[in-house]
Amino acid sequence: MLSAKEQLEEIKRGTVDIIPENELLKKLEKSVNENKPLKIKFGADPSRPDIHLGHTVVLQKLRLLQDLGHEIYFLIGDFTARIGDPTGKSKTRPILTDSEVVENAKTYTDQVAKILDMSKTKVVFNNEWLSKLSPFDMISLVSKVTVSSLLERDDFSKRYKKQEAIYMHEFIYPLMQGYDSVEIDADLELGGTDQTFNLLMGRHLQKAYSKEPQCILTMPILEGTDGVQKMSKSLDNYISLDDSSTDMFGKLMSISDQLMERYYELLSRKSAKDVEAIVSGLKDGSVHPMNAKKDLACEIVDFYHPEGTGLNERKKFEERFSKNKIPDDIKIIEVPTGELNLLAIMTEVEFIKSNGEGRRLLKQNAIKIDFKTYSSDKLEAESGKEYILKAGKLRMLKIVVK
Amino acid sequence: MLSAKEQLEEIKRGTVDIIPENELLKKLEKSVNENKPLKIKFGADPSRPDIHLGHTVVLQKLRLLQDLGHEIYFLIGDFTARIGDPTGKSKTRPILTDSEVVENAKTYTDQVAKILDMSKTKVVFNNEWLSKLSPFDMISLVSKVTVSSLLERDDFSKRYKKQEAIYMHEFIYPLMQGYDSVEIDADLELGGTDQTFNLLMGRHLQKAYSKEPQCILTMPILEGTDGVQKMSKSLDNYISLDDSSTDMFGKLMSISDQLMERYYELLSRKSAKDVEAIVSGLKDGSVHPMNAKKDLACEIVDFYHPEGTGLNERKKFEERFSKNKIPDDIKIIEVPTGELNLLAIMTEVEFIKSNGEGRRLLKQNAIKIDFKTYSSDKLEAESGKEYILKAGKLRMLKIVVK
Repeated sequence: MLSAKEQLEEIKRGTVDIIPENELLKKLEKSVNENKPLKIKFGADPSRPDIHLGHTVVLQKLRLLQDLGHEIYFLIGDFTARIGDPTGKSKTRPILTDSEVVENAKTYTDQVAKILDMSKTKVVFNNEWLSKLSPFDMISLVSKVTVSSLLERDDFSKRYKKQEAIYMHEFIYPLMQGYDSVEIDADLELGGTDQTFNLLMGRHLQKAYSKEPQCILTMPILEGTDGVQKMSKSLDNYISLDDSSTDMFGKLMSISDQLMERYYELLSRKSAKDVEAIVSGLKDGSVHPMNAKKDLACEIVDFYHPEGTGLNERKKFEERFSKNKIPDDIKIIEVPTGELNLLAIMTEVEFIKSNGEGRRLLKQNAIKIDFKTYSSDKLEAESGKEYILKAGKLRMLKIVVK
Repeated sequence: MLSAKEQLEEIKRGTVDIIPENELLKKLEKSVNENKPLKIKFGADPSRPDIHLGHTVVLQKLRLLQDLGHEIYFLIGDFTARIGDPTGKSKTRPILTDSEVVENAKTYTDQVAKILDMSKTKVVFNNEWLSKLSPFDMISLVSKVTVSSLLERDDFSKRYKKQEAIYMHEFIYPLMQGYDSVEIDADLELGGTDQTFNLLMGRHLQKAYSKEPQCILTMPILEGTDGVQKMSKSLDNYISLDDSSTDMFGKLMSISDQLMERYYELLSRKSAKDVEAIVSGLKDGSVHPMNAKKDLACEIVDFYHPEGTGLNERKKFEERFSKNKIPDDIKIIEVPTGELNLLAIMTEVEFIKSNGEGRRLLKQNAIKIDFKTYSSDKLEAESGKEYILKAGKLRMLKIVVK
């Protein structure tokens, strides 16, 4: 078992905040002295059961804590899911049925099992205690906080200033999830930085219920494959844990070199030292970005798929894209003889989302015809011929002229 | 049975607001056409069971509605009482026990029975339904309103601007009492003007639960015997329904002539026409204020005590104060021979609250010794003599010199 200080060093890696750090150290010391694991809380929303790499930033930290010997309470927020989260603007609300909740929770834990050791993870459902609160309990709970403290939450304060409606139940949710910490006597709760307010609520309520307050630990929000916005299913810039090994490898290879450094920091399971070495190697040119990216993609694919899959995908990728070979399963499009509009064709096969994106690729010399850089957006297609169009590193198309 | 319009005219007398008046008229028309009484809601707080004349302003209006054939739901807010209404600043809260709630409610209804016909009054307790709400019901309830709509309530908005703490359960109470209207399907709810927000909440929630919304009717807040602040036990300017007939008569006789007009308007059960005649008589001098005040005191005492008590008290009062007679039960104080400080004596027997008040009475020629105006605050008491001191119209004292 590592000492409390050593544990804290491992835990701190990549975190945004630990509040308060000295309290966590004391808890760790007590844990070591009494040989008693800390209770680590993580809350999951079962209404969105599709886990992507963005979620794994926190989950990997949980795994680390688990490896350090601590007890993970993986809390499924099924109480909320059974109510739905109405904006209040519409009279109908998407309420999950009991069986949907159970099903979603199953999907969720199946995916989480790819990261956590489920034999050492306590999966708990907050509906178990929250649904049993009497109206007296509820009022007693809400009496522990002030209206203004809730209005201070970033999104609430913005909406209030903009005179956008905040419905009262939205004020209740943070309290209920905070009450979960009271119920399970959490020592530490993890979340993304967007959860800071809610995590602190758990700490506040434990104090209000005369319990030892939890510490909180926040992790950064991972950017999606676009490198700009947070990874999210709705923005279609995500890599799902359920993606095929080929898709996962391909998507990881498509990220920018800059984003790759960030992914190394937040997603790689390599030691902090190793990651530092790679990042500085990239900076001084001793490490080639394409190789580093392949290593990362290989590691991540290998973690979420059977061992060896990563290497296999790497080989397939290199065969397909790195050696000017035409893959067997190449996409084929038939066109008539004459002048072709390449932007229109690339849009049709979904290589690009706009003509602007196509022109950018042309300008960046990222469009190739028969493995040679091509700078015009027009192509004079000759009858009976075939052309191999390559857009960026990952997309290849065979154009057959009739 | 009166027509809807005639009923509305009677109902409107002395009200501050009827919201919306045209809707109430429609409800009354429907009630007349279908020969079906309206359901009138009035909420009472059992934590303050001592009813004074201030409360009767609304209660008399309820009695009128009852006399017009409508159904009174006298709602005891025992749910709130069982929780207590903590300011949140203290950790301990005054929670009423079940038996205290029942006892208070009994005291309350006993007093209300002096105004309402209890055989036609439904006494209901909101703990009956509110205590049965599930956490889902509670959240569904609070989701019907926005945070900003609650912050608009006058006292909340003032406190929020002053950065004074508003605890979340304070936001819940208006919702719970509003939900009572949903539960009992109220057609009309009555309250003081300080209740306007809460009454409108009932209307809002009925709409949100797809029910026919209630109308609301507000009555003015009655000033206490000081004529300045609202009548309240804590300000000691109240006349309790439990006051003895003598105290009640005396307190009513002590109010200013200006306040008497207000009391006529809000407390007398005379018709609107009769009240108007008295008020204009007072203005043109054809009605003597002292007589009008005696009439009012007589009427009110007679209403809250056995018939004939009012007249009896009037006679006693006139004997005591109007004819320079010394009452049998006069207060007696013994003093030594020598110079007396009249202000100190009057303070001691609680005729005045401060020397300032005593000096004011002297200046107003309201202090008499042996029924003659006396303007000095000193009296040379001669051995063996007795003096009758009169302060204002109501207080008399015998000073016995030893």
